[in-house]
Amino acid sequence: MNATDPLALETFARLLEDARAPFPASRKAYVPGQLHADLRVPVRDILLTNGEQVSVYDTSGPYTDPDAAIDVRRGLASVRGAWIAARGDVERYAGRAPAAIDDGQRSEDAARLAQLRAEAAALQRQPLRARSGANVTQMHYAKKGIVTPEMEYVAIRENGKREWMAQYMADAGREQRLMGNPMGASIPQIITPEFVRDEVARGRAIIPANINHPEVEPMAIGRNFKVKINANIGNSAVTSSIEEEVEKLVWAIRWGADNVMDLSTGKAIHTTRDWIVRNAPVPIGTVPIYQALEKVGGVAEDLTWAIFRDTLVEQAEQGVDYFTIHAGVRLAYIQLTAQRRTGIVSRGGSIMAKWCMAHHRESFLYEHFEDICDIMKAYDVSFSLGDGLRPGCASDANDAAQFAELHTLGELTQTAWKHDVQTMIEGPGHVPMHMIQANMTEQLNTCHGAPFYTLGPLTIDIAPGYDHIASAIGAAMIGWMGTAMLCYVTPKEHLGLPDRDDVKQGIIAYKIAAHAADVAKGHPGARARDDALSQARFDFRWEDQFNLGLDPDTARAFHDETLPKDASKVAHFCSMCGPKFCSMKITQEVREFAARGLQEKAVEFRGTGGELYVPIQPVA
Amino acid sequence: MNATDPLALETFARLLEDARAPFPASRKAYVPGQLHADLRVPVRDILLTNGEQVSVYDTSGPYTDPDAAIDVRRGLASVRGAWIAARGDVERYAGRAPAAIDDGQRSEDAARLAQLRAEAAALQRQPLRARSGANVTQMHYAKKGIVTPEMEYVAIRENGKREWMAQYMADAGREQRLMGNPMGASIPQIITPEFVRDEVARGRAIIPANINHPEVEPMAIGRNFKVKINANIGNSAVTSSIEEEVEKLVWAIRWGADNVMDLSTGKAIHTTRDWIVRNAPVPIGTVPIYQALEKVGGVAEDLTWAIFRDTLVEQAEQGVDYFTIHAGVRLAYIQLTAQRRTGIVSRGGSIMAKWCMAHHRESFLYEHFEDICDIMKAYDVSFSLGDGLRPGCASDANDAAQFAELHTLGELTQTAWKHDVQTMIEGPGHVPMHMIQANMTEQLNTCHGAPFYTLGPLTIDIAPGYDHIASAIGAAMIGWMGTAMLCYVTPKEHLGLPDRDDVKQGIIAYKIAAHAADVAKGHPGARARDDALSQARFDFRWEDQFNLGLDPDTARAFHDETLPKDASKVAHFCSMCGPKFCSMKITQEVREFAARGLQEKAVEFRGTGGELYVPIQPVA
Repeated sequence: MNATDPLALETFARLLEDARAPFPASRKAYVPGQLHADLRVPVRDILLTNGEQVSVYDTSGPYTDPDAAIDVRRGLASVRGAWIAARGDVERYAGRAPAAIDDGQRSEDAARLAQLRAEAAALQRQPLRARSGANVTQMHYAKKGIVTPEMEYVAIRENGKREWMAQYMADAGREQRLMGNPMGASIPQIITPEFVRDEVARGRAIIPANINHPEVEPMAIGRNFKVKINANIGNSAVTSSIEEEVEKLVWAIRWGADNVMDLSTGKAIHTTRDWIVRNAPVPIGTVPIYQALEKVGGVAEDLTWAIFRDTLVEQAEQGVDYFTIHAGVRLAYIQLTAQRRTGIVSRGGSIMAKWCMAHHRESFLYEHFEDICDIMKAYDVSFSLGDGLRPGCASDANDAAQFAELHTLGELTQTAWKHDVQTMIEGPGHVPMHMIQANMTEQLNTCHGAPFYTLGPLTIDIAPGYDHIASAIGAAMIGWMGTAMLCYVTPKEHLGLPDRDDVKQGIIAYKIAAHAADVAKGHPGARARDDALSQARFDFRWEDQFNLGLDPDTARAFHDETLPKDASKVAHFCSMCGPKFCSMKITQEVREFAARGLQEKAVEFRGTGGELYVPIQPVA
Repeated sequence: MNATDPLALETFARLLEDARAPFPASRKAYVPGQLHADLRVPVRDILLTNGEQVSVYDTSGPYTDPDAAIDVRRGLASVRGAWIAARGDVERYAGRAPAAIDDGQRSEDAARLAQLRAEAAALQRQPLRARSGANVTQMHYAKKGIVTPEMEYVAIRENGKREWMAQYMADAGREQRLMGNPMGASIPQIITPEFVRDEVARGRAIIPANINHPEVEPMAIGRNFKVKINANIGNSAVTSSIEEEVEKLVWAIRWGADNVMDLSTGKAIHTTRDWIVRNAPVPIGTVPIYQALEKVGGVAEDLTWAIFRDTLVEQAEQGVDYFTIHAGVRLAYIQLTAQRRTGIVSRGGSIMAKWCMAHHRESFLYEHFEDICDIMKAYDVSFSLGDGLRPGCASDANDAAQFAELHTLGELTQTAWKHDVQTMIEGPGHVPMHMIQANMTEQLNTCHGAPFYTLGPLTIDIAPGYDHIASAIGAAMIGWMGTAMLCYVTPKEHLGLPDRDDVKQGIIAYKIAAHAADVAKGHPGARARDDALSQARFDFRWEDQFNLGLDPDTARAFHDETLPKDASKVAHFCSMCGPKFCSMKITQEVREFAARGLQEKAVEFRGTGGELYVPIQPVA
């Protein structure tokens, strides 16, 4: 970033090189809009060796488009700027004056911070806000019957290119056993822009898209859309730098993160966020109480509504798309956690609990909830109503504290909707398999259809180092049952801050969970990619098998560990079984044999009464 | 193994060093029997820093007992020898004469093979078989009302040391929400030896324990016992050596494999098996058709009943505990696979299909099934009735071919039980989440309660390189629903032969799935270890958190990547959140604050009508 800082330069060079390399055998393509001609909805076309083409949902943004000119010091090009302007309901204004405290009270390295800020100069934008009296949320437009470009974009993105799926979708139409079980979801065969509008108007889906984040490629979170995943990044007081966080962002969306939360709690919080938002084609979420706490030197009792409010405006102006707000942690509920095995495990929840106890007062987040709504609707920031009292272990799951807060979140949802503020509900956490359905049902019953956004849940507690797996089980199940977005868990959960590889491991585990949920729910075409890959597997098209997978690099590397030669990529066997034992090869021989045999046996057959195969007899 | 072969020597030295290192803070202990005083049932006691002791199921055998003298060239000490002899129904005999073909027809490296065989000389045993007219299966004894030492061993092992669980089990007794949902299983509070006998007599559980495998530590596979996992090892024609396979065995049981299948298809099959069985404290399964095919040079059509029968006897004499037999692949069913996307994906299934088609005859396995039973009952080899027609991809799941075979397996189960041969049923494979319950229900309905033993199932097909995760989701669910044993899938599935690290990754993923199932089913005490770990987490006992996990080494290494100092092991924070933001620390402060606050507020409280916490009010 600075010629005098060779380490940072090298870091970013690697970032761009790795993150911008197109996926193998893949080509970025854009689907145009119909209602809105200027839409260019990204997909990734995977070109198979048999001439077929498989097109998949693409979260990676312009980074994987070789034609896009990207300079992370200047930020991404605007996608939505013209749409926002065309609505005529926003105004550009001076914005809140930056304060030294925005980057933390006690920055030990002032010179470094000054340098970072200077380098972020080209990332500064004069903010937009709603004109006086206007409401600029997608929900507001939806309720007024307006189909925005964002809504059409989402519709096109959810459908994908249906042409190539036809042969695979035909199966499901033919055989009842292949139909999904939507578990109460209402998923149409084709997602129309009007369907998106209706879902947003009902509050069953949100499109997180701050008017100050025009770089975002719109996406939807809702039970009747594909299940999405969120990746958390962010520095902490102990470790990591801005460069690493931007790198993690680009890395995360490459592997499929639909949303990214910046959970930074360390130094240079404000400046880190400038870097992240300006370079993010996906919605960015934050937990504003973390920064507010930094501003009061880490003393929860010293938090005030004024400081918190100022932080909301600060982040809304930067372009954050959704805020986690722990307004459901009410004073009255804190006592419900006293007998828990692990008390309060949400950071935001514990901060608010401490504040409430210290002042023996109701939460200022709860009391000022409508004031918060006023800010949200001026920028179209969505609520992610935080589950500050979520369980931190299996034995605290679905307890009184958790469900008391959930009921309050349902009540707050209705308040938010009164202001047309888009809202989703955060959920746990730690829930054994047999209690997951009850948790989902409680959310559906109490939160009026607002999208559920769960962290896992982890199904057991004895797998530190592997909690991405322990939680992918719960995530897949709750995704099937109705959760709209799954917040990933990395292998480092409970142990440390995830690095680049941990981020990838967490994302792949959650892409698996989300896709398993889509397949189980029966999203039209969801299984088509599986079928294309299975067909490639059966045909011994190894390259296609790798390239259709969630992580072609790892699949190829694993294969090559034992059979590295190029000839093996078309070999009719692999190292698992060796050349003589491949069942798929034998099956193909069986089929050829059967085809020949049917002719050879035809004469004999005609003489035996027409029964080619012996009838099933019980064993003697 | 040979002083002239330094590589092998070094390999085994490393094996013994790694595999024999006791787990951190752990002590091997043995629980004595009551009915049978000479029983010594192994457990692993984990000593916590707060003085508590947690005792866990231990599959690692004598390898983790520092007092056990082990020489892999001589094999493990006998556990069951005296029990088998005491029953007075077996005889030692010369056994089948070894044939050159036992190690494959075309061993390119005859000198190396001769050396391996010579080094295996001390592993040779004169075999036992049932005396004429006798039946030596655990099921036979069970039906006669005999509680064998093996059955009592299993009962003690399943219960574990209940003392330490008391505080954790009390929770579940107190709160309805914490009770499991057994999904139709009948799990008693205490497993008695008589309960084990009854389950084995009914066929709902098996204790795989060949009389020629006295080294085995008895374990049970059944729906009313803890869910077990199986790890597959074995060389292939392309790669790996005997040393590597023995190392994988010891490595696999260290991490928790309850059973191991030797699926070798390469060179030196017979000799590899000698090494494995003699060094295995867990039941060993095989698929005898693999070796039989080697004996006929890989030409499926050349297989005969005589060759297959001879192979069964050969392996039964060596001590294999269960055989996968694909007797359900009947001629009439082969046509049902013709329209599948991936045909027949079971190696054994495709071999038998090819044989049936080539001869246009019913399977010799099906026709000779009672002859096979006669062999099984002479050694107490259990059936693992193979699912040769299992689906190879999601779109082939639960189809006519799969269920036709499953019905035949149910019919064969009854035949096996007529001979008192222990039997379990193999299952898929690839099944989307919404079809898992239907698959389990079909097995329960058709197979008369015989234990189900599934491979995964994989819930999606687009995750090559991560199929351990894609399948752990399905495995956890089907385990909860009633599957008794889960066959692991490693990250290398579909791509190559797993190495040592892949074996570990697969096992940990499956320990997670099995434990998640046990917790969901509500096995008494299953959640106690989770609670102990969660308590350690809340108390910032980092060392205990690591040591209570499934993989202490990885948990510790992940933690130390960002906070390596010893002081951090007692620190009240970690690198995820840093010192100011730890929610657990704040919760503890909240509790202290609440305790103080309650006293300080007591006076004020008495004046306000006794309502300490504000009542819940709807937001204005």
